[in-house]
Amino acid sequence: MPAKTGKAIFLKSFPQGLPAKDHFVSRSFEAPAPADGEVQLRIVWMSVDPYMRGRMRPDIKSYIPPFSLDAPLDGGAVGQVIESRHPSFAAGDYAVGFSGGWREYATVAGAGLQKVDPGMAPLSAYLGVLGMPGFTAWAGLNEIIKPKAGETVFVSGAAGAVGSLVCQLAKLKGCRVVASAGSKEKCDWLTREGGADVALNYRDYKNATELTKALAAAAPKGVDGYFENVGGMHLEAALNCIAFGGRIALCGMISMYNNTEPEPGPPNLVNMIGRGVMAQGFIISNYLPLAPKFAFEVAPLLDQGKIKFRESVYEGLEKAPDAFIGLFKGENFGKAVVRVGPDRI
Amino acid sequence: MPAKTGKAIFLKSFPQGLPAKDHFVSRSFEAPAPADGEVQLRIVWMSVDPYMRGRMRPDIKSYIPPFSLDAPLDGGAVGQVIESRHPSFAAGDYAVGFSGGWREYATVAGAGLQKVDPGMAPLSAYLGVLGMPGFTAWAGLNEIIKPKAGETVFVSGAAGAVGSLVCQLAKLKGCRVVASAGSKEKCDWLTREGGADVALNYRDYKNATELTKALAAAAPKGVDGYFENVGGMHLEAALNCIAFGGRIALCGMISMYNNTEPEPGPPNLVNMIGRGVMAQGFIISNYLPLAPKFAFEVAPLLDQGKIKFRESVYEGLEKAPDAFIGLFKGENFGKAVVRVGPDRI
Repeated sequence: MPAKTGKAIFLKSFPQGLPAKDHFVSRSFEAPAPADGEVQLRIVWMSVDPYMRGRMRPDIKSYIPPFSLDAPLDGGAVGQVIESRHPSFAAGDYAVGFSGGWREYATVAGAGLQKVDPGMAPLSAYLGVLGMPGFTAWAGLNEIIKPKAGETVFVSGAAGAVGSLVCQLAKLKGCRVVASAGSKEKCDWLTREGGADVALNYRDYKNATELTKALAAAAPKGVDGYFENVGGMHLEAALNCIAFGGRIALCGMISMYNNTEPEPGPPNLVNMIGRGVMAQGFIISNYLPLAPKFAFEVAPLLDQGKIKFRESVYEGLEKAPDAFIGLFKGENFGKAVVRVGPDRI
Repeated sequence: MPAKTGKAIFLKSFPQGLPAKDHFVSRSFEAPAPADGEVQLRIVWMSVDPYMRGRMRPDIKSYIPPFSLDAPLDGGAVGQVIESRHPSFAAGDYAVGFSGGWREYATVAGAGLQKVDPGMAPLSAYLGVLGMPGFTAWAGLNEIIKPKAGETVFVSGAAGAVGSLVCQLAKLKGCRVVASAGSKEKCDWLTREGGADVALNYRDYKNATELTKALAAAAPKGVDGYFENVGGMHLEAALNCIAFGGRIALCGMISMYNNTEPEPGPPNLVNMIGRGVMAQGFIISNYLPLAPKFAFEVAPLLDQGKIKFRESVYEGLEKAPDAFIGLFKGENFGKAVVRVGPDRI
């Protein structure tokens, strides 16, 4: 099978501050014929995720290299195998991986792919609740916060791909769940279906002092576990309300990813000392050996309807920049996914 | 035996900002005759410690109640038993406890005292290297940072009662030790006797950027473990230089204890996420079951001369406020102790 040519999204320039549509450009791109061990995919769904913003800072040392202006953007995707030179995959199979997004065709290493069953869940779910964000939620909650029944868990970014699963898993463990999200619609969903006992619309609060009051009222016994997706005033309020022996899973700080100047941290870190608080920053790739445990635990819950998930679907590769920019404007509800091609052709 | 009357130091008013001598007053105070289970002590040495500043804020919720203006200040002390109504102690014994300081005579619960041997080490050492600061150093290093040979450990407040032991214990474990202290004299001692490979005089650096450069040069492979006693620009520099998988023991933030306005936290907490960093705040009272393990490990090292310690000795109870204020001015070298009475009478 020859190379396949299709569209792909490139970064035209590295954004300063909030990314805009004109930082992106669609170009023709050739997915080469697969070499030994590789698989050529037709991309069906692609993911946009906050961590990608960090890869748009070419000067920052991080756990993942920055994007280049000379190659398409990259990221998680579900695709259908066109041609396989890896023994685990055959033409027609569906597979998900951390690479191959932002383009119509991709040639990737078979070793980085997992085969997925389109009959078990919608294909897009493998980018959300059954994929990297779901695994992130599960690992941060179970391996870092380790909540016990009766404890209070606070989740910021609670209507997002990660936060919404954290809330539901914590609720299933018998915790009191306090959620924060950015609209009344999201808050309503969180208390109705998303596992939250109380949902705070953070846009109602001007600063950390106001958010602290609301959180203290929602968590009268204090916050035993805080799942951090947002940073800024959310972290400050959480540290004001944290209980003795509290645990904080630092997953993301999306409120700060587009800062052009460094933003000060919370002034109350000293509370961590007097209250014996632990904070663990984490990236999901450090937990890969636990991926099967996650799948065995969450897939049945989804199958039994005990876990709900939401998606914001963007139709067509050209919409991928909108989907990505929407992450930082709070426009997406649940997991933001982009449909690049039909499930079946 | 009747009540014993002597001098004691009271707080005249709660300080705002840096405490001054006129916040303190010496008054006559009566140590009552001991009740069942209690011991009456003649205080020989008393300790001043940074955590006491937190007890001078009557409105702050903490792990330990605030001081009252109607009672002497309190804190760790070594005393000689005058009268005992506790079966473990007899008149003439020496004992150390977390209570009984800031006065000439104290009546305390025998259950809170440990008997000490004046022949094994100078009595004052039970307030420093063999006491609460030493145990704090040992627990933060071994239970939180858990350094491995070849790793780099950074210690702020490194010439203090806690930091100086952290440096030496880390060095004995085969780590590269980078220390920070506030004078050339302290830095010289740290590299000559105190276990440090490099000692940085933080007064040479105007801000976190400058300190970061010096730390990066001193820790070319990054900081695997950071023992935090200081806060402020030290924490920011440590987070800039922290290695992947780094661990931070949050023991104190003395640079901030006298703030009248909250000081912003470091702007680079997000590094904890990308580098998978863990920070654990701790207070030593949560580790009490490990106290014998600490003693069994550190006492022989001291006996063999493998651990050095320094003291700043203040003569006479009336000097206790100076000793305490000196903590925040960086005036003390090693453990600050106040001699309240002679070893033997």
